[in-house]
Amino acid sequence: MQNVFLVGLMGAGKTTIGRILARKLGLKFIDSDHEIEARTGASIPWIFEIEGEPSFRRREADVIRELTGQDGLVLATGGGAILNPDNRAHLKARGTVIYLRASVHSILQRTAHDKNRPLLQTADPRKKLEELMAIRDPLYMEIADVVIDTGRPNVQSMVQTILTQLETMACEAAPNCVTHAEPSMNEQSTILLNVELGERSYPISIGPSLLDDAALLARHVHGGKVAIVTNTTVAPLYLARVEAGLRAAGKHVISVVLPDGEEYKNWSSLMQIFDQLLANKADRKTTLIALGGGVIGDLTGYAAASYMRGVDFIQVPTTLLSQVDSSVGGKTGINHPLGKNMIGAFYQPRAVIADTATLETLPARELSAGLAEVIKHGAIIDAAFFDWIEANIGKLMARDKGALAYAIARSCEIKADVVRQDEREGGLRAILNFGHTFGHAIENGLGYGEWLHGEAVGCGMVMAADLSQRMGLVDAATVARVRALVAAAGLPVTAPDLGTERWLELMEVDKKNEGGAIKFILLKPLGAPSISNAPQDLLLATLAACV
Amino acid sequence: MQNVFLVGLMGAGKTTIGRILARKLGLKFIDSDHEIEARTGASIPWIFEIEGEPSFRRREADVIRELTGQDGLVLATGGGAILNPDNRAHLKARGTVIYLRASVHSILQRTAHDKNRPLLQTADPRKKLEELMAIRDPLYMEIADVVIDTGRPNVQSMVQTILTQLETMACEAAPNCVTHAEPSMNEQSTILLNVELGERSYPISIGPSLLDDAALLARHVHGGKVAIVTNTTVAPLYLARVEAGLRAAGKHVISVVLPDGEEYKNWSSLMQIFDQLLANKADRKTTLIALGGGVIGDLTGYAAASYMRGVDFIQVPTTLLSQVDSSVGGKTGINHPLGKNMIGAFYQPRAVIADTATLETLPARELSAGLAEVIKHGAIIDAAFFDWIEANIGKLMARDKGALAYAIARSCEIKADVVRQDEREGGLRAILNFGHTFGHAIENGLGYGEWLHGEAVGCGMVMAADLSQRMGLVDAATVARVRALVAAAGLPVTAPDLGTERWLELMEVDKKNEGGAIKFILLKPLGAPSISNAPQDLLLATLAACV
Repeated sequence: MQNVFLVGLMGAGKTTIGRILARKLGLKFIDSDHEIEARTGASIPWIFEIEGEPSFRRREADVIRELTGQDGLVLATGGGAILNPDNRAHLKARGTVIYLRASVHSILQRTAHDKNRPLLQTADPRKKLEELMAIRDPLYMEIADVVIDTGRPNVQSMVQTILTQLETMACEAAPNCVTHAEPSMNEQSTILLNVELGERSYPISIGPSLLDDAALLARHVHGGKVAIVTNTTVAPLYLARVEAGLRAAGKHVISVVLPDGEEYKNWSSLMQIFDQLLANKADRKTTLIALGGGVIGDLTGYAAASYMRGVDFIQVPTTLLSQVDSSVGGKTGINHPLGKNMIGAFYQPRAVIADTATLETLPARELSAGLAEVIKHGAIIDAAFFDWIEANIGKLMARDKGALAYAIARSCEIKADVVRQDEREGGLRAILNFGHTFGHAIENGLGYGEWLHGEAVGCGMVMAADLSQRMGLVDAATVARVRALVAAAGLPVTAPDLGTERWLELMEVDKKNEGGAIKFILLKPLGAPSISNAPQDLLLATLAACV
Repeated sequence: MQNVFLVGLMGAGKTTIGRILARKLGLKFIDSDHEIEARTGASIPWIFEIEGEPSFRRREADVIRELTGQDGLVLATGGGAILNPDNRAHLKARGTVIYLRASVHSILQRTAHDKNRPLLQTADPRKKLEELMAIRDPLYMEIADVVIDTGRPNVQSMVQTILTQLETMACEAAPNCVTHAEPSMNEQSTILLNVELGERSYPISIGPSLLDDAALLARHVHGGKVAIVTNTTVAPLYLARVEAGLRAAGKHVISVVLPDGEEYKNWSSLMQIFDQLLANKADRKTTLIALGGGVIGDLTGYAAASYMRGVDFIQVPTTLLSQVDSSVGGKTGINHPLGKNMIGAFYQPRAVIADTATLETLPARELSAGLAEVIKHGAIIDAAFFDWIEANIGKLMARDKGALAYAIARSCEIKADVVRQDEREGGLRAILNFGHTFGHAIENGLGYGEWLHGEAVGCGMVMAADLSQRMGLVDAATVARVRALVAAAGLPVTAPDLGTERWLELMEVDKKNEGGAIKFILLKPLGAPSISNAPQDLLLATLAACV
């Protein structure tokens, strides 16, 4: 890892942030002022008083020339270091320069009682700071690769922003790495997306053979211990590889292999995770890794949310469904005998790593089930993406890596954007339930597990499109397009015959919930959602037509 | 409840926020623009175009005069309503006026594509908005009781801030209600504190007979359903009263009575809560109420954090320990066979209601155990508070309501301030563990339950003070004061003889954890914390002296 240099006015937080950043990046932290004090055996105010500023600046230049020559360093520089052109040249050439840009007001608040800041022992500190700012701001800007406004709610948020910026810069410098989903991606492409959730922001990496990139995974593991949670189906395929990579990076690895299946998404599996964490004395700095599909992701995420009141976790989804859907958004949890996903937490991962090579071993039915959510994202948000899926459904079914990478990346972008606007499902996020009202009724009516969730959603989307047409929101051609695409993805387009009574009961349309009848997510037009009640006669007509 | 009027420029969020605010306050929401449209049957752009602005303003004045004459309303007014002096007079006189103050930049972003804003259909919307701002800002300010900057991360955060402000204003208007802990409080005093955690901020009410104030509790219950979790000891004393108050307020009440004791702070109790919630079809708008001590608070808080990924909860602590300590700070959780509090969440309550009358029935040992944490807050943060406790320990032991109210309120203030700075225990919050390193060793060494937690902490503080003296941080007189106060609070000052080996083992001083020996929270001087390693010989001397 290349050096990271922090510049900015005194009191901007360079030392505090530098220390955390170094820990997270696994680099060594040095504060150039402390280094000068250590070398001279004198405090900085003392050096200023006895030797004067010019002498201090000479000592500072020596230290910066020497330290920037080293490798693997996070270096916090004194506020005036950039006055010297040699210092600026060294900082710019030998690492990534991050400018922590603070307002005069906030610096005044933070340095109010600090006698260790020699330049502010003056009658009018505000005036002095404004002068410093006017002279130095252009110099900081001149060498900065990244500018971070320090007027943020907290230090964690700033550190997270810096880490994201560094990661994005690394991607931009790498061959075949892009930071936005592009249809032109080929099978070598990797994509780095960022889910913007303030201090809970996290990156999603998508690409071939990412599981073999031990450095990528290890970079998001900040402590010495890591626990991989997986299941009996996935473990034989990928566990040894992931373990080996993490061990090579010097991590202590604990593995928890659970039985495979939705019926194990329960408290007993959660306790197995806790038991092994405690038996291995896992502390608060332990990172959990979810290696598997949606069930493993939900279980592991909730375990991470709850263990010692919250530890880091990383999603490594190995099914198309979990790559495009469940690993983005922070919903975690377990089932209760009286209801699915009734116990859980909104808890965001530190990173999502989606290796498209894992899709090679995915059963065909699960590939189709994942495509249902891909189609959904196009239908409710992005008509152009829907067009692209139509044109490329053959490639997707043939598991073309470039096509899959784009489908996954664009789905994640769309979902991340919705989640960003409504993290805790207050409103907008409901549109992601397009096809799900019908779909849940199918799953529940046939007994969970009979149809895969994605199969039920696929058929549910056809029904929702049909209802949209009956309500005058879309035309018949749109319904035909949705039906054809769902069918081309290998998904059912005819609903099971549960009987009209049972259908209505399963969709709870007979119950008054939250001030009225159930809300449907409809299309108006293709590529945009419309949330609305539906007259019962039109709903009955849709049921009659689709069953 | 009095009317709430929202004023501010177009696009400041008056309608969105007003709607949520009305729901939370149980008031009716009206948007004056919508009201005008409904009455005229014409859209506002149409009225402007056909009748002109003067006519619109007359219609607006009629609507505002009439609506402000009603009661129990949250009214969002059009951006220009305050141009009319009569409107200003009505708004100011007939309710609480909240000014949502938005920047021109953010309004431009939000109204970019809105054709329903007639005044912005102009070539240079920025200039127009700046003109509007210059004219209107002073008028908004003139009538505002509360000014809210809308540049906040999200709507929830703004609503929470407004609710807190309204609550504080209500307190300030009431007799015997104060918003800061004051030693002069008498037995009628109620205190309203605010724990500042952004969108997770919440109020703490402290006072006599608050359990009889059904409106207070109901005000924090936003949905129709509420589940009270309590135990077999507390239920006979207070459950019927709390149930009756909530039912009188029209709430559907579910009660869950668990067995009493730390040994029931486990998954099985948690499942009992979930079972009853699901059996009663409790939805995401259900509020949980923790009625009891620390175990009930921790269990209920974690149940609330996990049920449907998070529902509201209210702490109603009925022991001194839970009133001064565990109900502030958001730590929730359950025990695991391999460790206490190993599974849980940081999850903040919507409100804390501490009824000092409940302390009348508290066993003497538990009163003393609670005082240990009160003394701790004085010792590590506030020497003047420590002085006050010394002077008033007799009153506190005699359960004087005024003295207890101040002790609880000041403790909550101190703890809330530490939590605000370090919600998730990244650093500073560690100082709250003063006395706990020794205390945990005592509890664990004797077997949990032998000594109460507060008893162990009381003795632990004496030991930590002794160690502070040996390390040259405080003088002998300070140690004597800590010892005398702990003894006067009815707490043990001599540690049990566990054997030196076992002591060291229990404190884990022989293990290298996190880069070195264990950190002690020490005093330097009384009223301020110092975090430091301790040389083993000094630690051994403390053990020899205190056992």
